[in-house]
Amino acid sequence: MIIVPEHEISGLMTRQDSFDAVEKVFASMASGAAYNFPVIREAIGHADALYGFKSGFDRAGLNLGLKSGGYWPGNADKGLTNHQSTVFLFDADTGKCRAIVGGNLLTALRTAAASAVSIKYLAPKSAKVLGMIGAGHQSSFQLRAALDQRAFEKVIGWNLHPEHLSRLEDVATEAGLPFEAVELDQLGQEADTIITITSSFAPILKNAHVTGGTHIACMGTDTVGKQEVDAELVARAQVFTDEVAQSISLGECQHAMSAGLIRQEQIAQIGDVINGTHTGRTSENDITLFDGTGVGLQDLAVASAVVELAVARGVAIEVDF
Amino acid sequence: MIIVPEHEISGLMTRQDSFDAVEKVFASMASGAAYNFPVIREAIGHADALYGFKSGFDRAGLNLGLKSGGYWPGNADKGLTNHQSTVFLFDADTGKCRAIVGGNLLTALRTAAASAVSIKYLAPKSAKVLGMIGAGHQSSFQLRAALDQRAFEKVIGWNLHPEHLSRLEDVATEAGLPFEAVELDQLGQEADTIITITSSFAPILKNAHVTGGTHIACMGTDTVGKQEVDAELVARAQVFTDEVAQSISLGECQHAMSAGLIRQEQIAQIGDVINGTHTGRTSENDITLFDGTGVGLQDLAVASAVVELAVARGVAIEVDF
Repeated sequence: MIIVPEHEISGLMTRQDSFDAVEKVFASMASGAAYNFPVIREAIGHADALYGFKSGFDRAGLNLGLKSGGYWPGNADKGLTNHQSTVFLFDADTGKCRAIVGGNLLTALRTAAASAVSIKYLAPKSAKVLGMIGAGHQSSFQLRAALDQRAFEKVIGWNLHPEHLSRLEDVATEAGLPFEAVELDQLGQEADTIITITSSFAPILKNAHVTGGTHIACMGTDTVGKQEVDAELVARAQVFTDEVAQSISLGECQHAMSAGLIRQEQIAQIGDVINGTHTGRTSENDITLFDGTGVGLQDLAVASAVVELAVARGVAIEVDF
Repeated sequence: MIIVPEHEISGLMTRQDSFDAVEKVFASMASGAAYNFPVIREAIGHADALYGFKSGFDRAGLNLGLKSGGYWPGNADKGLTNHQSTVFLFDADTGKCRAIVGGNLLTALRTAAASAVSIKYLAPKSAKVLGMIGAGHQSSFQLRAALDQRAFEKVIGWNLHPEHLSRLEDVATEAGLPFEAVELDQLGQEADTIITITSSFAPILKNAHVTGGTHIACMGTDTVGKQEVDAELVARAQVFTDEVAQSISLGECQHAMSAGLIRQEQIAQIGDVINGTHTGRTSENDITLFDGTGVGLQDLAVASAVVELAVARGVAIEVDF
């Protein structure tokens, strides 16, 4: 059994590795070679924690297993990350546990990779202005990964607490780009690529804010009740997602679905665009929206990649299990 | 993070340790301190494998986590056990993975402990003849654990392939007891304690076979469609189980329920008998039946016990994770 501790991940896994792994598994999902198992998520009644599993099997990459962990709101006070997760990979030929991989940084990387994949395939080719909504811990990952995908000339951002926007400004500066804090209407007008990465339970970006020719990656909605953009904006857009079942039940599309503004058949899998079985954006003037709900197969894909890297570089811990 | 490899388990965990852990967690389940999460079980479409998770949380013992693995029918040809599993324990206070434990032998021990617990609390005090139905790999574990609970004077057994009964005879001989291979009607008449441990999909032991004053532990039915005793026998007995929800959906009670022969309210949790909130057997002449479906909390309980033992004896592997 191979162990790759959390503290090794940052030295092993690049944004490009994460992007490649996520792009590949989204393609597998759309071709039917990979599928996610039902998600388990439990409020355990201890330490206010949410605990559960995301899991699946990719027959193409032979990745089988799960990510387990959750949200422990009291961790920060103990000097630990509130989100804690570990990925367990199993040998698809024997059922033996083959690897244990720290899942905290990987979760951030695979979530950033998902919006980056959506930008590669769906954003206008000529995109110049990247608009960020949300400036929490995860926002810097999304921003960095997005900047790899288009020749952006400027980053603009909005956050409920504007004082946190310095996090985005730092990343933009690092990339040699100007940053501007803006209001939502300006963000919707200027940005031709938008990422929402908040934990909002009410729409922030409204249909009226957004002018045409925009790609919007909604990355924060992963739970029943959460919402980042209004249902009218979802209804107006060409909609893509990682997994349709999650999109309509706990993703950004849940609200447009329950309002009857879109039908399930209108939501395409991003993997179909990757595979060339869906044309994707139909014109530069359209709005495309990617509903990134986060699936277990993403976790398995990046963990499997990191195990290969750890073995190749001699930093994997081997245990006779 | 602590690792206890499969090959260490046999040197650490005794039948008594397993019994104590399972008895305690059954009590926690009945008192409401412990609950199992939904079971995931998937035919993954590769190597004919069934893969999944059993998981839960025991607030009393602070045991949180899952057992993952499944059934790989081609393993025997590779010199591996077909049933493969690994237990992952999480720190309930932080969500960090705290231990990885080999789950193969533990699964056998916790399943044997469950029927032993049922015998302790439900079998006639004066039980003398133990009847075994099934003589596969798991049967020897069930038999050994059962013999600890009453002053049995004889073991009798039936198996679809009688040539395998030598497995039971060997264990009986080891314990200094006579063994006899019998037909089912003789088994039902003579035995005052019966364990069924088969993978049958049709009733083996029938209502007509069994005379009064018997405890029957049905340990083989853990899947929709499986069945070891007929529904009339279940209806005639005082019925107990590890978890009512599993009992009526995939345990031995599924058939009597769907035939309308019993109601859910008639099925008691064994933990209530342990806690003294249910009187258990009402007379020495009754039939009691324990439907042992196997729950994730049993796996967590024995794994947690083995981690303590491994640490105490200095054989736990510690990894900076």
